[in-house]
Amino acid sequence: MRVSQFFFKTQRSTPTDAETISHQYLVRAGFIQQVAAGIFNVLPLGWRSLNKIRAIIRDEMHKAGALEVTMPVVQPRALWEESGRADTFIPPLSTFRDRRDRAMILAPTHEETTSLMARYAINSYRDMPLRLYQIQTKFRDEPRPRGGLLRVREFEMKDAYSFDADATGMDASYEVMTEAYRNIFSRCGLNAVMVEADSGAIGGKDSAEFAVLAETGEDIVLMCDSEWCDYAANAEKAEFRKLPNPQESPLPMEKFPTPGAETIDALAQLENIETAKTAKAVFYTIDRKVHIVVIRGDYDVNETKLRNLMGGAEPRLSQRKEVIAAGFTPGSASAIGIDSSMVIVDESVTDNHNLVAGANESGFHLRNVNYGRDYSADAIGDIAMARDGYTCARIDCDGSLRSYRAIEAGHIFKLGTVYSSAMKVSFTDEDGTLKDSFMGCYGIGTGRLLAAAIEANHDDRGTLLPASIAPFEVALLGVNMKGDERVGTTVDAVYAELTGAGFEVLFDDRDEGAGAKFADADLMGMPVRVVVSSRSLARGGVEVKRRDQPPASSEICEVSRIVDTVSAALKN
Amino acid sequence: MRVSQFFFKTQRSTPTDAETISHQYLVRAGFIQQVAAGIFNVLPLGWRSLNKIRAIIRDEMHKAGALEVTMPVVQPRALWEESGRADTFIPPLSTFRDRRDRAMILAPTHEETTSLMARYAINSYRDMPLRLYQIQTKFRDEPRPRGGLLRVREFEMKDAYSFDADATGMDASYEVMTEAYRNIFSRCGLNAVMVEADSGAIGGKDSAEFAVLAETGEDIVLMCDSEWCDYAANAEKAEFRKLPNPQESPLPMEKFPTPGAETIDALAQLENIETAKTAKAVFYTIDRKVHIVVIRGDYDVNETKLRNLMGGAEPRLSQRKEVIAAGFTPGSASAIGIDSSMVIVDESVTDNHNLVAGANESGFHLRNVNYGRDYSADAIGDIAMARDGYTCARIDCDGSLRSYRAIEAGHIFKLGTVYSSAMKVSFTDEDGTLKDSFMGCYGIGTGRLLAAAIEANHDDRGTLLPASIAPFEVALLGVNMKGDERVGTTVDAVYAELTGAGFEVLFDDRDEGAGAKFADADLMGMPVRVVVSSRSLARGGVEVKRRDQPPASSEICEVSRIVDTVSAALKN
Repeated sequence: MRVSQFFFKTQRSTPTDAETISHQYLVRAGFIQQVAAGIFNVLPLGWRSLNKIRAIIRDEMHKAGALEVTMPVVQPRALWEESGRADTFIPPLSTFRDRRDRAMILAPTHEETTSLMARYAINSYRDMPLRLYQIQTKFRDEPRPRGGLLRVREFEMKDAYSFDADATGMDASYEVMTEAYRNIFSRCGLNAVMVEADSGAIGGKDSAEFAVLAETGEDIVLMCDSEWCDYAANAEKAEFRKLPNPQESPLPMEKFPTPGAETIDALAQLENIETAKTAKAVFYTIDRKVHIVVIRGDYDVNETKLRNLMGGAEPRLSQRKEVIAAGFTPGSASAIGIDSSMVIVDESVTDNHNLVAGANESGFHLRNVNYGRDYSADAIGDIAMARDGYTCARIDCDGSLRSYRAIEAGHIFKLGTVYSSAMKVSFTDEDGTLKDSFMGCYGIGTGRLLAAAIEANHDDRGTLLPASIAPFEVALLGVNMKGDERVGTTVDAVYAELTGAGFEVLFDDRDEGAGAKFADADLMGMPVRVVVSSRSLARGGVEVKRRDQPPASSEICEVSRIVDTVSAALKN
Repeated sequence: MRVSQFFFKTQRSTPTDAETISHQYLVRAGFIQQVAAGIFNVLPLGWRSLNKIRAIIRDEMHKAGALEVTMPVVQPRALWEESGRADTFIPPLSTFRDRRDRAMILAPTHEETTSLMARYAINSYRDMPLRLYQIQTKFRDEPRPRGGLLRVREFEMKDAYSFDADATGMDASYEVMTEAYRNIFSRCGLNAVMVEADSGAIGGKDSAEFAVLAETGEDIVLMCDSEWCDYAANAEKAEFRKLPNPQESPLPMEKFPTPGAETIDALAQLENIETAKTAKAVFYTIDRKVHIVVIRGDYDVNETKLRNLMGGAEPRLSQRKEVIAAGFTPGSASAIGIDSSMVIVDESVTDNHNLVAGANESGFHLRNVNYGRDYSADAIGDIAMARDGYTCARIDCDGSLRSYRAIEAGHIFKLGTVYSSAMKVSFTDEDGTLKDSFMGCYGIGTGRLLAAAIEANHDDRGTLLPASIAPFEVALLGVNMKGDERVGTTVDAVYAELTGAGFEVLFDDRDEGAGAKFADADLMGMPVRVVVSSRSLARGGVEVKRRDQPPASSEICEVSRIVDTVSAALKN
């Protein structure tokens, strides 16, 4: 493709609203153009990269035995009432009324319509496994769209769905898809770590994310640093071993004054104890009711774990006035004397004795508070947030968790019968009985994958995309094409040679200076740059340089050897 | 593809709501599944056909120098206020409010976002021509979705847009796209007629439709029957020569009683005259004001022409009470004595003398009414509907228009500067002045193209799609595979041979009777059917038959010659 015939528009300046590197480079190089917050035009350059990503995904989905379909963006809200998540999906479904006053939603994911297809296709256990996928537009009205293609509102996603006759079949489909996902990320040049994840609004029991490690990632993943252990989970899901305080016998509770000590840190300092010797109280409103959540003072509440412990109801931090109205004393609150239906505790306070907690009286706390003896809770579980340095939860592992910022680039779920029972995707099994099918779902955002690839592969001049997903493989530049006739004829010959050999070449045939052309080629990040100049010709041919190597690594190759030389450079 | 590994579901019964053949076959063969009125799941079989259509379109767009992009489905309504059609688009834009209470719309077409891209890319006349296209979901909340994929609410469309520095450039882009469209329809096996069309809600001056003739079409096209004339237009646009009544001198107007004659036919019968000797009054409310529209009694009003004459304001038939409130006498109304700002006339009443018209008095009409002498109008033009049998409008042509039902399968527009001036897609011309660019747009619905292909190509057993867009090229069937071992081994060998040679084969490996397999293959419409049976083997090989030929035309071919035989059958 000649630049003169392409949609070519680069920017020197960084867009003011672009916080992340991928956003800056995607806009500056002309991959995308913002239409509204979290809504983008994909320009021809971006389309080329995305289409290469799509081709890789399609190939791997095909190998995984999945058939391509297309499901609608606009769906009746009634269908989501059938699955039971019309009112609970997060972010809330964008809804409009059509001309016949029916509520229609913009689909953020497609389990409902997939279930319609499966319900139609599946009668017998013989009709499974059934694996379907699409590459289709979705809409999620995220509260804070940011980072260019990292967190958008409208996005393109490859979503696949599997249906099997039993859990074993579901596990097998999940394995096949896991393998497909590993291949997709690997072919896109991404080192994606598979981490345990929470299932969130999609539901189901098990799920895993493919996380691309990058400084600008919005997610935190924790990975065990032991070389014998492969434990990895995102922060929402991660478990850790809670090291108990030294064993003590319960002592009598005693009240003591703590003027001005309204935080755990202040309290620990005043008492000259570790925060691990305190019980922290945090207030959450869940299903419109204020709850006191008690956790050891050195831990923080993981709201996702809290939500799961409470059956999926979304918790939000209570406002101070709500807390007071519910009869609590902020700064000196504890669960002592509180009805157990309002109390939620992390295991860390049930396993440790003689903690310091609030006295429910302003300016006072209690020593030697013990769960069971002094207060109790209707809900007990692991609701603590894992942090860097915590101990791995795996039995026999004494590694430590290390925290990394990451981008969630794929998410796969074992859904079980959650949707198939609600939406009646049932079948007659071998024994003649009617059963619900076992479902899995598997998503990759194509745009986010591209953005993640840039976050993980760039330098201060631009992107460093691998050839498999770069918009073009080769940047071809002529320097002083008009001034030196040999440059013009040689660069035309090289262009014909390379395109004839099947390479994707962007030939910068503009009447611009060498500096601008070099800068644009580096910004767009074509993996190999070929330059024809008077100097290169004087040195015996054309200059070939890999984008990820320093200028000194460039080599001069004879025009007749250009195809082999470029081919070798792309393979490295 | 083996049927056992495919999403395979056919229906014997016709869906009750499927009025058109294409809808019936698309559902029965398992191409699509309805999700809501005018909203469909595309099943794997349908996806294959649509993807072949997409590939043909992409290839032709590429040849036409168009670059692929993707624009968003969800757009800020503010963007449509910029272009001036937020409130005027028909059908009205589906709108919802996002979480920040901004009005967002579902895009029914993409001139606005294309203009954003062009505004970004184009600075100088040297940056044009710029041709962009996408294949993307659109939503139009049609009042009466019907006919399966013929008139849907959510649909996939290839929409292309061109930008040029002047009208000559726009015309050149339009020509290139016209050629691309001819190629697309031809490669999809469709005989599409290019007809003049109205530009409708898209705007601009010139537009043409590609119409596929089919009994079930919703559109009417009129084509001249003279072999020397290629005039063709859709009914909304079609012009015709209005043959005047024999010339007469204006006579004095006279009132006469017409008890009970409230229609043109009753009036003509009472007076024993041709309806062409009467002036018909029809009432339209335009911009909230009742207008009397006068047209010769033998013609009908073309509401599209009326809208265009009135500057684009949508006319609707006035209600009887509105007409009376405006001071008219339904059944005996005329424009005589009416303020000319309320009067709209077709040329047919200005060119004919001594017509019979209403007396604006119940039970009375007037003879010898003459435009100009007796009444006048602020709006005069051609607002008559062309009909089968009318005379061709072309000078020197005395052919007659013939009316055909058709499906609009593509629509191309010369938009001029309508959008570029509103949305500031301007550029610096060679002479240094700032100018608005000239735009064209070009649309094909992929699903409607598939449906149109079935409407035009089917028999009573199923579809007859050409190989270029059929979901598979070959239906391979084994009859009695389990009973006759040779059948099983031969059909496996043939499958390996054909797929190895690159044919798209659907191998019906189900344990079903021959009747069911034959019926399903015919329903899906694979162009070539290959059958392996004990009988075919006894006759020396396998049976090869073209879908569009009778059973007697089948031939027996040796297994070793299967690739050549199938190849030849597909070429015919």
